[in-house]
Amino acid sequence: MGNIAKNKSRIWAFLIAAYWLSIVTYIVLWQKYKHIINVRDQVLSANARPEQFTVLVQNLPPPTNGTRSEQVDAFFRKLHPDAYEKCLVVTKLHKSSKLWTKLDSLKRKLKHAEAVFGQSKTKDKPEGIRPQHKTGFLGLVGAKVDTIDNSKEKIKDLSVKLQAEQKRTIAEEQEASAFAIFNNRAVAAEVSQSAIATIASKWRTSQAPEPEEIVWGNLSMPYLPQLFRKFGIYFLVFLIIIFYMIPISFVSALTSLDNLEKLVPFIKSIVKIKVLNTVLQAYLPQLALIIFLALLPSLLMFLSKLEGIVSHSHLVRATAGKYFYFNVVNVFLGVTISGTVFNALKKITKQPGQIVSLLDASLPPQASFFITYIALLFFVGYGLELSRLVPLIIFHIKKRFLCKTEEEIRDAWAPGPFNYHTHVPADMLIVTIAACYAVLAPMVLPFAIMYFALGWIIVRNQALKVYIPKYDSGGRMWPHMQARILAALVISQITMLGYFSVKKFVFSFLLFPLPIATLIFAYVCNKLFYTAFRVTPISLVSTDLKDMPSVASLVEAYTPTCLTPEDKFEDAEKFEDARSTATSRTSSGITSPA
Amino acid sequence: MGNIAKNKSRIWAFLIAAYWLSIVTYIVLWQKYKHIINVRDQVLSANARPEQFTVLVQNLPPPTNGTRSEQVDAFFRKLHPDAYEKCLVVTKLHKSSKLWTKLDSLKRKLKHAEAVFGQSKTKDKPEGIRPQHKTGFLGLVGAKVDTIDNSKEKIKDLSVKLQAEQKRTIAEEQEASAFAIFNNRAVAAEVSQSAIATIASKWRTSQAPEPEEIVWGNLSMPYLPQLFRKFGIYFLVFLIIIFYMIPISFVSALTSLDNLEKLVPFIKSIVKIKVLNTVLQAYLPQLALIIFLALLPSLLMFLSKLEGIVSHSHLVRATAGKYFYFNVVNVFLGVTISGTVFNALKKITKQPGQIVSLLDASLPPQASFFITYIALLFFVGYGLELSRLVPLIIFHIKKRFLCKTEEEIRDAWAPGPFNYHTHVPADMLIVTIAACYAVLAPMVLPFAIMYFALGWIIVRNQALKVYIPKYDSGGRMWPHMQARILAALVISQITMLGYFSVKKFVFSFLLFPLPIATLIFAYVCNKLFYTAFRVTPISLVSTDLKDMPSVASLVEAYTPTCLTPEDKFEDAEKFEDARSTATSRTSSGITSPA
Repeated sequence: MGNIAKNKSRIWAFLIAAYWLSIVTYIVLWQKYKHIINVRDQVLSANARPEQFTVLVQNLPPPTNGTRSEQVDAFFRKLHPDAYEKCLVVTKLHKSSKLWTKLDSLKRKLKHAEAVFGQSKTKDKPEGIRPQHKTGFLGLVGAKVDTIDNSKEKIKDLSVKLQAEQKRTIAEEQEASAFAIFNNRAVAAEVSQSAIATIASKWRTSQAPEPEEIVWGNLSMPYLPQLFRKFGIYFLVFLIIIFYMIPISFVSALTSLDNLEKLVPFIKSIVKIKVLNTVLQAYLPQLALIIFLALLPSLLMFLSKLEGIVSHSHLVRATAGKYFYFNVVNVFLGVTISGTVFNALKKITKQPGQIVSLLDASLPPQASFFITYIALLFFVGYGLELSRLVPLIIFHIKKRFLCKTEEEIRDAWAPGPFNYHTHVPADMLIVTIAACYAVLAPMVLPFAIMYFALGWIIVRNQALKVYIPKYDSGGRMWPHMQARILAALVISQITMLGYFSVKKFVFSFLLFPLPIATLIFAYVCNKLFYTAFRVTPISLVSTDLKDMPSVASLVEAYTPTCLTPEDKFEDAEKFEDARSTATSRTSSGITSPA
Repeated sequence: MGNIAKNKSRIWAFLIAAYWLSIVTYIVLWQKYKHIINVRDQVLSANARPEQFTVLVQNLPPPTNGTRSEQVDAFFRKLHPDAYEKCLVVTKLHKSSKLWTKLDSLKRKLKHAEAVFGQSKTKDKPEGIRPQHKTGFLGLVGAKVDTIDNSKEKIKDLSVKLQAEQKRTIAEEQEASAFAIFNNRAVAAEVSQSAIATIASKWRTSQAPEPEEIVWGNLSMPYLPQLFRKFGIYFLVFLIIIFYMIPISFVSALTSLDNLEKLVPFIKSIVKIKVLNTVLQAYLPQLALIIFLALLPSLLMFLSKLEGIVSHSHLVRATAGKYFYFNVVNVFLGVTISGTVFNALKKITKQPGQIVSLLDASLPPQASFFITYIALLFFVGYGLELSRLVPLIIFHIKKRFLCKTEEEIRDAWAPGPFNYHTHVPADMLIVTIAACYAVLAPMVLPFAIMYFALGWIIVRNQALKVYIPKYDSGGRMWPHMQARILAALVISQITMLGYFSVKKFVFSFLLFPLPIATLIFAYVCNKLFYTAFRVTPISLVSTDLKDMPSVASLVEAYTPTCLTPEDKFEDAEKFEDARSTATSRTSSGITSPA
């Protein structure tokens, strides 16, 4: 659009394109939402999942008489005498979890030592070499002891301690929340959707998270402090977004070597080498940006955890949301505006009063930045992703020097879950860029299409066949993504509105209905479809099931690993391998009162 | 504050006052909310109200096999075999309702005629004069007939027709919504809060409105059209608010006779008469404003009804909300800004470039307008309210010329329900004025206090002892009022922020946290307390009841009057007098399938 003169009739074509873009987006999103709801329905109604039978009750008031579990039992037994089974009160599990982790690492150490001992039995030395270690700091100082014997002894000690601690925790460390277990999915769904106490900060019910994704430490946060914490964290994230603006502005100001030359004249001599020039021109500034952004997701994940979110999938969504807004404000708006302002300022100082015509000329050139940005992402990013080069190197180093037992090798090879909280916002940023430049500078589009076409093949393959998911939220990421896509659309519509005005196109007011239409579309979709993602609709779970899970299996699922009796959990470990490394379930816990 | 010079240290006092005002408002509102929730809890848990046993199911999809009632029965009977009793499918009742109204008026006519006949039996004429009327247009033309005989005949005919029509309606005019009746309050509350279908536009459940306040015509509106209708009506109300701005601006521009003199010089001769001058000065412009506003509530009520709201109490709240924003934008902002601008413009044309200092000088004078406005409201408004002069005059006219039977006299005397939809926004406007001028021009405060002190005595008396409520929403107006009071507070805080800046007070940025604090306070209150007003918390209705209402009585309550068998409803009329005139329940209806 940079080539179109002001107020020409050709601008009409762009106006029509803007409408076309919006309408096609609405239609596609509408159909996708419906499709995903259908898939989700099938998944939810067919399988009896433990979380469908379990209601998380948070913020219980102090019991007036009797224990916590009596309090919960009394209420639900009266309400649903047939359907209610029992409750598991959540406990503070700091100490048990610590002991459990220690015990677990000792067991690993023992196995490792046994493997080392086994491998040392060569033909020459059939008796082998018993591994030894020093008992002092980091195994560097202190008396040397036989590792196998020493470990066995310690394990014995710790097992006794852990059992005592488990009993103490169950009895004394009960917190103000519980899992209520029902034998009827429909009743559990109804209870989880109902307000129980008149003041909403008490007896808050919700569907329990999947057993594997519970954030134990957050289950018993008081309601009001959590609310204020949330505000505090939103404010902090807001500050982070604003504060990071400054370095990114610098990076984007240095985008083109032309700028660098103007600012740092001695660079000219380097730039004269043609090959280096090309490479620097294309990749240097964007690479800095990408590395810079890689530091962020963990921080945002940590902040989201402080918000008091109880399930890991929700945590991932909250992080993805924050990261998306960071990306849009800092990468997209930051580059567009400060790149523009930087280019423009130079000329304005010479000829002030021509701001409008300058903006007009310097918005489209930023498109080239984003084209190289996208290209870099899909050449380097997808390349790394597909080859899994870094994990491969780490694996081989580990295998060579650290791993002795089969279990250790398997752990080293394990790819972990798919990182939705970084992949989704990154893709959504490309959507934003594509939506904003689709009409103004359509050259971005082929690159965006290539990005998503390759992504469809590569990332889909990785997500389905490489990474191992710990839990299955049933497509709950979709409403989140839909909201972000619509946010991108609104941004693009407002950008176009501004840009059409700069072009002094008299009919640019015709673009006004577009952002409003998008907001209404988002509202309608939310009203119609989102409920089914937020809660479990009754009609899905009122069908009869062939095999109901036993109450014992539900209790087991919602008991944290560090509170499971030791013999039981060792059995479990042998049989269910898919059940993750279980260390994620040890920072707080649960107790089932008799 | 108009007397304080710029950037003086005395402004600090006003800043502290602004914080004081906000904090006191928060504390009072918080305590009130808690208090009202307590009262509501007691009311809801103690009495078994029919709406607690009844769930309104809207937007049923077309039944795949069988009838509508079979469809609803099948679902709920499976879900709650013990608690579910039966369902009443809502029907289109245009024709039955018409017949019923006709029959009712004929019966009244008959009674009237009999009374006239009875009174005509004086000592002189023991046989009396049988009343007669003409059958043609408005009783003016056509053949003369005996009214009593003629009415009796017609009633006989109509009764037969009505019975046939009732049967036909029940069988053929079923719509896509139903009342599901349960024998357990807790289960009904759970079902009413649960999402049933995956797509929220189907099988929408909510607690049934009280029988007396159902808006029958709106029960079966399709979901999406209703949503769009709502947007359309919001837009329309927005236009009305903007459009009415113009006449109100004129009215307020004419506020002071000084202005009138300047504009219409010949008025000077009238103004010279001292008494007239005083009266005109004080009351003329405000009176115009008040009369002008009296036209509006009915229109807003009509528009709210078009939104598809199903209960009358909700209708009243929706109207009150619209009316409040109308009041704030047009009366409060309109008068403040355009009065100011009008006064200011004159001087600016002479000395341009002094806008800031002029604004500074002309904001406080508007306080005097609002002082007289409030005074007028409580002298004239409360006087009329307390004496009920207009209804008294109308009653005596009716009694003298129209009423013959006791029933007719009672109807003429009936004060009807309290008009919350006009009283609440009017009071909220005074709250807004008081909050905004409390710090800037505290002279408004004594008048506002007097207004509410008198209101406490007078309006409370009227509401409790004069007006007859048709239904009892259980304090659901409070969250609405709280929201409006907080809106008033935000407006006042922003006004102060602007005014402090005009005063060039360097620490005016200290006021920034106030509006944000108000928004957070509103959010927290909403989260904590509003749920208990929106839905019925389970803990309230899980207590055992001494006397449960019978299913038959519930069915009767949720059957519209025009579908009740004729003999039954005549009995009912004799016994329950409080049950309103029943005409409100005749625009659509319900059918109970066997």
